[in-house]
Amino acid sequence: MITKCIDLSSGAPVALGAARARVTIDPWPCGLTVDRVPGLTTSTIKRALLGRAFATEDLSRERLPKRLALPTFASDALSSVAYAPDEILLTLALAGMTAYAVSPWVALAVVALMAVVVAANRHNVQEYPDGGGDYRVVQDNLGQRAGRVVGSALLVDYVLTVAVSISQAAHYTTGGLPVLHGWETWIAIGLIILVTLVNLRGVRESGRTLAIPVYLFMGSLGLLLLLGAVQALTGTLGHAPSAGYEIEPDAAFDQGLTALGGALLVLRAFSSGCAALTGVEAISNGVPSFRPPKSRNAATTLVILGAISSVFILGIIVLAGATGVRYVEDPATQLTRDGAQVTDYQQIPVIAQIAQAVFGGGSPLFYVVLISTGVVLFLAANTAFNGFPNLACALARSRNLPRQLRQRGDRLAYSNGILALSLASILLVWLTGARVSLLIQMYIVGVFVSFSLAQLGMTIHFSKQLRVITSGVQRRRIARRRAVNAFAFAVVTLVLVIVLVTKLPHGAWVAVSAMLLLWLLMSGVHRHYQRVRSELALPTDQEDPMPRPARSPALVLVASLDRPTMRALAVASATRPTTIEAIIVDDEDVDWRAVADRWRDLDVQIPLRVLYAPYRQFSAPVLAHVMNLLSRSPRDEVVVYIPEFLVGHWWEALLHNHSARRLRARLEHLPRVVVATVPWQLGSAQEAVDQVQDEVRSAALRGRGRAR
Amino acid sequence: MITKCIDLSSGAPVALGAARARVTIDPWPCGLTVDRVPGLTTSTIKRALLGRAFATEDLSRERLPKRLALPTFASDALSSVAYAPDEILLTLALAGMTAYAVSPWVALAVVALMAVVVAANRHNVQEYPDGGGDYRVVQDNLGQRAGRVVGSALLVDYVLTVAVSISQAAHYTTGGLPVLHGWETWIAIGLIILVTLVNLRGVRESGRTLAIPVYLFMGSLGLLLLLGAVQALTGTLGHAPSAGYEIEPDAAFDQGLTALGGALLVLRAFSSGCAALTGVEAISNGVPSFRPPKSRNAATTLVILGAISSVFILGIIVLAGATGVRYVEDPATQLTRDGAQVTDYQQIPVIAQIAQAVFGGGSPLFYVVLISTGVVLFLAANTAFNGFPNLACALARSRNLPRQLRQRGDRLAYSNGILALSLASILLVWLTGARVSLLIQMYIVGVFVSFSLAQLGMTIHFSKQLRVITSGVQRRRIARRRAVNAFAFAVVTLVLVIVLVTKLPHGAWVAVSAMLLLWLLMSGVHRHYQRVRSELALPTDQEDPMPRPARSPALVLVASLDRPTMRALAVASATRPTTIEAIIVDDEDVDWRAVADRWRDLDVQIPLRVLYAPYRQFSAPVLAHVMNLLSRSPRDEVVVYIPEFLVGHWWEALLHNHSARRLRARLEHLPRVVVATVPWQLGSAQEAVDQVQDEVRSAALRGRGRAR
Repeated sequence: MITKCIDLSSGAPVALGAARARVTIDPWPCGLTVDRVPGLTTSTIKRALLGRAFATEDLSRERLPKRLALPTFASDALSSVAYAPDEILLTLALAGMTAYAVSPWVALAVVALMAVVVAANRHNVQEYPDGGGDYRVVQDNLGQRAGRVVGSALLVDYVLTVAVSISQAAHYTTGGLPVLHGWETWIAIGLIILVTLVNLRGVRESGRTLAIPVYLFMGSLGLLLLLGAVQALTGTLGHAPSAGYEIEPDAAFDQGLTALGGALLVLRAFSSGCAALTGVEAISNGVPSFRPPKSRNAATTLVILGAISSVFILGIIVLAGATGVRYVEDPATQLTRDGAQVTDYQQIPVIAQIAQAVFGGGSPLFYVVLISTGVVLFLAANTAFNGFPNLACALARSRNLPRQLRQRGDRLAYSNGILALSLASILLVWLTGARVSLLIQMYIVGVFVSFSLAQLGMTIHFSKQLRVITSGVQRRRIARRRAVNAFAFAVVTLVLVIVLVTKLPHGAWVAVSAMLLLWLLMSGVHRHYQRVRSELALPTDQEDPMPRPARSPALVLVASLDRPTMRALAVASATRPTTIEAIIVDDEDVDWRAVADRWRDLDVQIPLRVLYAPYRQFSAPVLAHVMNLLSRSPRDEVVVYIPEFLVGHWWEALLHNHSARRLRARLEHLPRVVVATVPWQLGSAQEAVDQVQDEVRSAALRGRGRAR
Repeated sequence: MITKCIDLSSGAPVALGAARARVTIDPWPCGLTVDRVPGLTTSTIKRALLGRAFATEDLSRERLPKRLALPTFASDALSSVAYAPDEILLTLALAGMTAYAVSPWVALAVVALMAVVVAANRHNVQEYPDGGGDYRVVQDNLGQRAGRVVGSALLVDYVLTVAVSISQAAHYTTGGLPVLHGWETWIAIGLIILVTLVNLRGVRESGRTLAIPVYLFMGSLGLLLLLGAVQALTGTLGHAPSAGYEIEPDAAFDQGLTALGGALLVLRAFSSGCAALTGVEAISNGVPSFRPPKSRNAATTLVILGAISSVFILGIIVLAGATGVRYVEDPATQLTRDGAQVTDYQQIPVIAQIAQAVFGGGSPLFYVVLISTGVVLFLAANTAFNGFPNLACALARSRNLPRQLRQRGDRLAYSNGILALSLASILLVWLTGARVSLLIQMYIVGVFVSFSLAQLGMTIHFSKQLRVITSGVQRRRIARRRAVNAFAFAVVTLVLVIVLVTKLPHGAWVAVSAMLLLWLLMSGVHRHYQRVRSELALPTDQEDPMPRPARSPALVLVASLDRPTMRALAVASATRPTTIEAIIVDDEDVDWRAVADRWRDLDVQIPLRVLYAPYRQFSAPVLAHVMNLLSRSPRDEVVVYIPEFLVGHWWEALLHNHSARRLRARLEHLPRVVVATVPWQLGSAQEAVDQVQDEVRSAALRGRGRAR
């Protein structure tokens, strides 16, 4: 084991004896399996399921070229073309067939918004090459409170990403396998469990393996649009499966899209279509993973991504119109054929319908489109499983969430965060029955809240820069950038208002309430940690920061004269306390006379005190005696040595240690008391003991190769 | 606070300086409420519900004269007259009306058995004036293993006592209030909860208050039998409510009581009637509560009790026949009137039917009989709530059950045992729907197992005496007594066989299985404690029983430089360890550089060591470092000081102490390590802290008056 001493002032290695700073940096690395309950072999099982643990340094090896970074970060953004057009059409359908004429304009509006957001996000990427995304931008520029708002918005948004993507993937599955129709909820839950396990194992392979399905998706969808366009131009374009139906408009829209109601509906369709913008922030989070020049590559990737998404969305909407797609929320009530309601029609997503029309129903290309779309949706959910724990970890580090969320588990995964996300999304899918249109209502609020605040943050960021930079050329450049972000802020905030107005009564209130709850929780946690911190802070004016106690009497708890007791006595006297005393409680069960006799026979050099307990309570006489000792001098610290057993089996724990634990819990209520546990490993615990020690040794051997 | 030093060899007080034995007996008594969870005010609530705690010395004041002892111990035995005759009639009814002619003979057989048992138990009482009952007799004379058998049998029997008594009390309740018919299960459960609360509060009042209802019961039942006899002799005896019905015999008994089937049925009826013998052992358990001459008074009380029971049983059976009682298990299927099944008849217990016939249906005396019988049944259950915890405590003391059962709670009650009994009997009542006839099947096995073994034990006890006593007169006397017990053993064992044969398939297997399970459990517990004891025993040949460690290096766990850390450092250095070192783990979250800088600024005189943690595990580097220290010398003991927070609210516990607790749990797996917890009371915990200290102080003040 190598030990280095470094002089903190110079950073140079120092011989042990001369370390002025008296600080030793121990590069002795250790690795270990996670904690075990004695008797269970969770570590073995975990190792089998999850594989070998990763060292932190492995993280840094993951640097991707643009061609591999695009698929890695694009899946979330690209996947939204699998449901955004659907939602536009579905919403417009409320006003009947005529409203579909508006759909290309709605799509165009969404594309325009995407352009603005992409342009603004380029600056995010360029100004924050260390990554961090919207949360980082807001926290740095707008403060902790706004950071918490963004944090809660993004946390909710990640849950919804998983719920929406997986639910839609389930619908694509039943689109390709109609026999599974009606089982979407269970398919979705199964997929979430699958992606959870994959993520608990870690995503080291992500770079290369992700590329294939994403490129396949882009390729097949591109081919679909291309072929569809060619067919439309040559007049050979087929019809969608739903082309033969009519849409029964909602009662409020008998006249079609007119007046305020119509305008609102178009806005609703627009805000549903804005679901296409989700996923853009993944790139700004992942800038460190790009090859240098990181920012530039990331920015370029962002633009490419935005362009591809836009083309897809427009193309899908246009082709949907050309093939006569009728897409509604509830086919049974809204679709009619010749005036009669349709009962046996199973609706499939828009892309699937277009693929049927362009490629033909049984064509292998149809299934390629379906499968690759489904896989991309799955990967989008996977992205959320990276982002959520990262965010939770960042929040925990800034003390907005409980500290155990900052721990990384094995294989570079944040186990706690992953599990939380999994449970939340399963619950959501189960409650909504995997209904994507319902989930979409909740979806976009979080994203736009954080977009909006992030753009404000960027604007302020540039303003801060302008205050210090004097060069005219640079000032103009920064001012131009700031203008872009300020404009984006205005636009995005407007869209946010539109989204809230149109979606709040339809389901967004759930997301908003969740965000509010999370925000309150995080504020409370943060406040608590702050309060504790100030409570514990060392007073700066204190003369001696480390006032030593005048005396430290030692008490050893004795019940009988056996080996654990002897060990406790030996240990206690080895610490050379001011005074030492053994105490035994007479609670009708202990034969203290026999103990005292043996004490005398063995000529034990430590005084034994018998405490009388008329109320048969074990802790009370001990506590009273300790309080008596403490009252004698206000600067004494009493150290109480309590023997405890380490047991091998869970049921043995029922048979031992009760009085000891209760006593320790009560002793902790007294000031100036230290409770020293003297463990004795029972024979049955030998296996657990060996296992712990073996793990430490093997991990230390493994880690030796990594010594800094 | 008074401290006395007593020289153990002479027992005389010794001045402090001269205490050769170095043993101090501290008569400083303390009393305290039971342990609290911080934040809950259970102690205040408990005190309100349960009253002031009792000192052990109050126990000894409970000495009763015969006239008060009889009711105290008789309720269990007397109460069985409220269901034993019912069971005899019910069983015989399977063979139709004609079988009822046999009932007085069955009752006579039961009475004869009772005479034998009473006679044999007199010797129990006389030979064991310290009390202890069957368990004590068997353990002393037949050994631990047999003692465990009796222990498990009696534990099961106590549960059944409660279940049977309370269920029958519920039936008496609905007998008097027919509107409650059908609610017996819930009434029974409610009564069990009531008796549980009463017993948790303690039974100090038991002596005097029990006397009234028991004497009332004896008086009213005696009056009933007397008046009934007079009426029968003068021909004015009325009819029971069920007199107008006929009993449909079971298919197997078309011919009435003939051949083997008939004989078996009579034996079944007899063994059901043996339920009348339960409760006899209560007196042998309670001998210490009698006024001197204890044994003689107890023996006399026993005989009186047996006589009264016998008279009651015989009287009830005879009067039942005279008034034409028809008592069956299921009136709806077994009773007929003019050949047609009876549907609207609500059956009430036999005593109630007799009372209706003798006193008249609406007469106040009828209700007196009903109420007093119900109360006596309730008190019988109450007796079990005394016996069960006492027995569990005795079993725990001989290490057959977990040690926490040996603790007495407040108010001279054994809280854990009471709660266990309560839960078990509620479960049983709920599962059987308060059906007494089903519960009776399980009931008597336990009692007769312990009777049988106890008589064997007494026989052996007398044999042991005969081996040492030479005087002819005494030998003959002891031999006569031994003959009685030997005969009782033979008879009781025969009855046990009958009981098992007749009842095993009908429900007794449940009780036998439970007994077996308990016996296995107790054997396991006993074996475990024995093994641990021998594992921990001090080797007798060891030169130095208390080998001191060569060195005791101290490690202090540090995460930041705050007050708790400083306290831990101060405490650690005050114990004057061989070496002391502060360790801080670099797990990506701790800014160790800042801590090290501050360390240097404050010029802390303790070296700081930074442990590198590449796998981001908190415990592992610490464990590895400790193992390294241990490996340097096989006689070192490492003391690790870990700061911990005492929190005020439960949710604060979610935010702190996790790493510390996990580390402590793992450290306990290493040999020669002592884990010292340095508690820091957070501000929010101040209330809990004050409360604990106040309780200790007030209890000490109270206890001062009791100083020996």
